[in-house]
Amino acid sequence: MSDGVVGSDSFPVTARNRVKRMHERGRYDRRDVYAIVDAGFLCHVAYTIEGQPYCTPTIHWRDGDMLYWHGSSASRMLRHLKAGTPACLTVSHLDGLVLARSGFNHSASYRAAMCFGTARLVDDPAEKAAAVDALIDRYYPGRSKDLRAISAQETKATTVIGMRIDDASAKVRAKGVADDEEDYDHPVWAGVIPVRTVIGEEEPCPRLLPDMAAPEGIAAYRAGRRLDEALLETQARYEGTEPLAF
Amino acid sequence: MSDGVVGSDSFPVTARNRVKRMHERGRYDRRDVYAIVDAGFLCHVAYTIEGQPYCTPTIHWRDGDMLYWHGSSASRMLRHLKAGTPACLTVSHLDGLVLARSGFNHSASYRAAMCFGTARLVDDPAEKAAAVDALIDRYYPGRSKDLRAISAQETKATTVIGMRIDDASAKVRAKGVADDEEDYDHPVWAGVIPVRTVIGEEEPCPRLLPDMAAPEGIAAYRAGRRLDEALLETQARYEGTEPLAF
Repeated sequence: MSDGVVGSDSFPVTARNRVKRMHERGRYDRRDVYAIVDAGFLCHVAYTIEGQPYCTPTIHWRDGDMLYWHGSSASRMLRHLKAGTPACLTVSHLDGLVLARSGFNHSASYRAAMCFGTARLVDDPAEKAAAVDALIDRYYPGRSKDLRAISAQETKATTVIGMRIDDASAKVRAKGVADDEEDYDHPVWAGVIPVRTVIGEEEPCPRLLPDMAAPEGIAAYRAGRRLDEALLETQARYEGTEPLAF
Repeated sequence: MSDGVVGSDSFPVTARNRVKRMHERGRYDRRDVYAIVDAGFLCHVAYTIEGQPYCTPTIHWRDGDMLYWHGSSASRMLRHLKAGTPACLTVSHLDGLVLARSGFNHSASYRAAMCFGTARLVDDPAEKAAAVDALIDRYYPGRSKDLRAISAQETKATTVIGMRIDDASAKVRAKGVADDEEDYDHPVWAGVIPVRTVIGEEEPCPRLLPDMAAPEGIAAYRAGRRLDEALLETQARYEGTEPLAF
């Protein structure tokens, strides 16, 4: 199980994770990075295969400083590369469109975390089975034990990639319009158009058995609620901690 | 200005854009790829710098088969690399969490597009100024002419990267729960938790001049509306076409 963020503090600042553009928006604290990573259901992973970079969207899950995700175009390569391959896993949230009085000051409100490390294929069957259960239980607390058990064939067909985070950074823009002082007199509308990702009303499978109520483990996903908030709550339940603040 | 998708059809299928995992979800038609690319405000770009892949979130805009985005960690490298560098720009939308009766069949509903090409620094001042205006007008039709004009210093400080799409693919999962036939009797709740990204009530800048109403160009961003729908509408207005369907 996860050791959460207990005893942790900041990631080292290195040449690859140092925030260069708009560096005042950079943060290196584990809590800040994980509050962004855990609040997303989808991540994007960059790998290089024979000189070609790939940016692959996938579902991720976190256990302490370990990140896991499903196989992708890289898994074929990893199978032959015991030493692993450098990767970057990024989770981003769009919070608003920022319309300023000059084109230069137009922006977005966002939270993004970039995590660097060496991606390795998780090929031990027991470790892989545990990782797949963690994927389920991290998103839907307690659900794995209620499911039809995973078969040996499914375990074999599942590709899980793991990466210990060596360094990471978060970048956050959370303020409103920031125009140059002399531009506030320019006669144009300026403001923020907020954006949020929300949960809709659950759609039960049409072939549900009778009297099969939605389980307590998905209670966090209430219709109308922000998804990021629900995901921070389910991660905290999985870790047995308090939800991180975003 | 954009030549839209007129006269276009499908991207070539190559080793790098062929959808390998769950290949039945793959699509190569320009319309499908652009309906995903245009529906997103944020993209993720993968580059490799000295063997290290980076997955950078940024704002993108499209003009025909050209993609543009703001500078990032790659821009420093590009400045010294006239031939450009291979890149992959991905736009993804999460549409739902899919809870099946086995762990193996848990999934997500999503739309994702991966675009491949060679990223180049846009360093001609006129081309760069046009690209920056296009960024504004693609998202907020007609807005660039109402803004305080961009200065030479701002143009210099802005890094714009351009990439012609050589090949691309879309991957879409839009169905509900898909369990193995023999699992439908397993007594567990199954269903889809839908997710959507929506627009909130606009927040005018507190220093707005009197009687400065929100302009017609942002009318697409009505509170409560889906962001992807509004973004397809503003792209279509920019191109002078009908919105692509998603």
